[in-house]
Amino acid sequence: MAESGNTIRAMKAPELQTSGWLNTAQPLTLAALRGKVVVLHTFQIFCPGCVQVGIPQAQRIYQEFDPDRVAVIGLHTVFEHHSVMGRDALEVFVHEYRLRFPIGIDRYDGQPQGVPSTMRAYQMQGTPTLVLIDKNGYIRLHKFGHISDLTVGFSIGALLSEEAGESGQIAEAAEPDAENAACDADGCSI
Amino acid sequence: MAESGNTIRAMKAPELQTSGWLNTAQPLTLAALRGKVVVLHTFQIFCPGCVQVGIPQAQRIYQEFDPDRVAVIGLHTVFEHHSVMGRDALEVFVHEYRLRFPIGIDRYDGQPQGVPSTMRAYQMQGTPTLVLIDKNGYIRLHKFGHISDLTVGFSIGALLSEEAGESGQIAEAAEPDAENAACDADGCSI
Amino acid sequence: MAESGNTIRAMKAPELQTSGWLNTAQPLTLAALRGKVVVLHTFQIFCPGCVQVGIPQAQRIYQEFDPDRVAVIGLHTVFEHHSVMGRDALEVFVHEYRLRFPIGIDRYDGQPQGVPSTMRAYQMQGTPTLVLIDKNGYIRLHKFGHISDLTVGFSIGALLSEEAGESGQIAEAAEPDAENAACDADGCSI
Amino acid sequence: MAESGNTIRAMKAPELQTSGWLNTAQPLTLAALRGKVVVLHTFQIFCPGCVQVGIPQAQRIYQEFDPDRVAVIGLHTVFEHHSVMGRDALEVFVHEYRLRFPIGIDRYDGQPQGVPSTMRAYQMQGTPTLVLIDKNGYIRLHKFGHISDLTVGFSIGALLSEEAGESGQIAEAAEPDAENAACDADGCSI
Repeated sequence: MAESGNTIRAMKAPELQTSGWLNTAQPLTLAALRGKVVVLHTFQIFCPGCVQVGIPQAQRIYQEFDPDRVAVIGLHTVFEHHSVMGRDALEVFVHEYRLRFPIGIDRYDGQPQGVPSTMRAYQMQGTPTLVLIDKNGYIRLHKFGHISDLTVGFSIGALLSEEAGESGQIAEAAEPDAENAACDADGCSI
Repeated sequence: MAESGNTIRAMKAPELQTSGWLNTAQPLTLAALRGKVVVLHTFQIFCPGCVQVGIPQAQRIYQEFDPDRVAVIGLHTVFEHHSVMGRDALEVFVHEYRLRFPIGIDRYDGQPQGVPSTMRAYQMQGTPTLVLIDKNGYIRLHKFGHISDLTVGFSIGALLSEEAGESGQIAEAAEPDAENAACDADGCSI
Repeated sequence: MAESGNTIRAMKAPELQTSGWLNTAQPLTLAALRGKVVVLHTFQIFCPGCVQVGIPQAQRIYQEFDPDRVAVIGLHTVFEHHSVMGRDALEVFVHEYRLRFPIGIDRYDGQPQGVPSTMRAYQMQGTPTLVLIDKNGYIRLHKFGHISDLTVGFSIGALLSEEAGESGQIAEAAEPDAENAACDADGCSI
Repeated sequence: MAESGNTIRAMKAPELQTSGWLNTAQPLTLAALRGKVVVLHTFQIFCPGCVQVGIPQAQRIYQEFDPDRVAVIGLHTVFEHHSVMGRDALEVFVHEYRLRFPIGIDRYDGQPQGVPSTMRAYQMQGTPTLVLIDKNGYIRLHKFGHISDLTVGFSIGALLSEEAGESGQIAEAAEPDAENAACDADGCSI
């Protein structure tokens, strides 16, 4: 991310690196979603802040906006307790919580351990993390922990108003605000 | 409001007609707010849906957005029980609920009775009603009852992205959804 | 209130002193309610902590328990802004919030000003205050501010289990916890 | 459960049948808890109604009442998706949700499959289920789905008021109210 003076240029969103998908017949790529605003919601199924706050918010976004213009994507970014958060557990979770939007599984280089690839590429600090990607594939919002519906809605409204094809500025800078390596009411940090 | 085909042109927002103001040294006019997005929140102090849902939402909007770009205005539109919802009662309410945004008092032609002037000019159906007015003074959202933070945030984001000076279309049509002349969980209707 | 060792004897509940009633054809007296557990909920219509927390709790209690065994009584104890919280305003509030339980109006010696009589007799610190009175007319719980449904339910269950006629001990001591003379999230203090 | 006229006699609570425990050095038995009121909360870690409503309620009960008088016990009664709800997953869940009360794991006769033993002995219909057991070891409340804090608190208050040693009646009859074999907002049924 290059800075010059007060102007911060948005970072191109790294492509998703996944080992599988739920709720979609075909794997999704950010490349194929150019022209839409992408809401990328990353979570873990045993992260209380995700289950109680982040996931319900992602569901609201999925329900309120037109999928032809706003693509809501979940990403299971497991960075701890890997053995009990595999695909089989995720499938049960998604089934029981009635989640309908496409959910990718973040990939590991080898065996599931440590921080998975997409999470690393985005330099995420933990779960839940919400990332907004504009029509041209640039990261415009990157938030670890909770974020209000007003702010998310506002950002989606601003990004949808942009023309595809023109380069944008950052609507709101990422605000790293976690420092502990555990779960609290806000989420689970690395 | 003129219609041609599927295109509905937005209505110019009628100027506020008030008999007094709280939380501002000078009376506000929509004319003087051109260039800003205006969030007009109308309420009554004894309307449960206003006190429990509408007012807290107006406060969140006031706290989250830059007042130089988004003007949050309350309007006390008393259409029933006039004798117990005068300025003195409103002042106590505003003081106890710690409201900080400017609040106008909708005006009557003579003695306080019936539906007040601004409420009539906007053809509002009851309280709470949220009206979004764009930078050029056109009504772009007009909602009686509750509306989600996601939708309000989205609409503000979309309207802020517009240039002042260019005419807009309706972001979302008003959806009249009240039919009873009383208060329920959603609000109080005329 | 006499103390001996660790034993605190409960205080006899002072009789209600009222200037009027809503939701009951006949004025209520504690004397006539002997044999029932009485839940006395005091409030003011412009106290945010009452409207948002205390009153809804009183409604839940009224809905869940048998009125033949548990008498829920509201008491409008206005100690500030008297001119805008008269009987007419209370009637509108009770109507709009759909309150069904009997509500008394605390009485003043002369003109409405200062702390009203019942509130003074109970040495209440503000609103909301919840008072539980046992079958024999003794105060067993006296709480300014919020109190959890679990604790209220528990106390009612314990008091109902007692025989009328036998003298009780204090289930939970009053815990004065307010020090400022204004309204906050918890309530309004004198 | 014997009935005679309108009198329903409470059923002796079947002993817990467990294959392991968390948050306690020694396995718990109901027999050893005679003299206390026991709050038995059964759940599954992927049951939304448990995670969002039942578990938080159990935590509140655990925090508000004296453990010397009220024993709160969790019981993981897995009747579906057994392969992803083993002890290792439960341990992660309990760690991340910061649960502190003792939690038993309901036992199977052989391999984990179908409805586990304690759940069968109590004829539970699904999760969450709350069971209140009196000082003498009798079931006094048995509720599948949600139950209000007022009612739970009330029941605990009533049961604590009873003498150990005397036989009780049912405070509230079990009200079977589930009919579908899946999870909804209330819970997961068999």
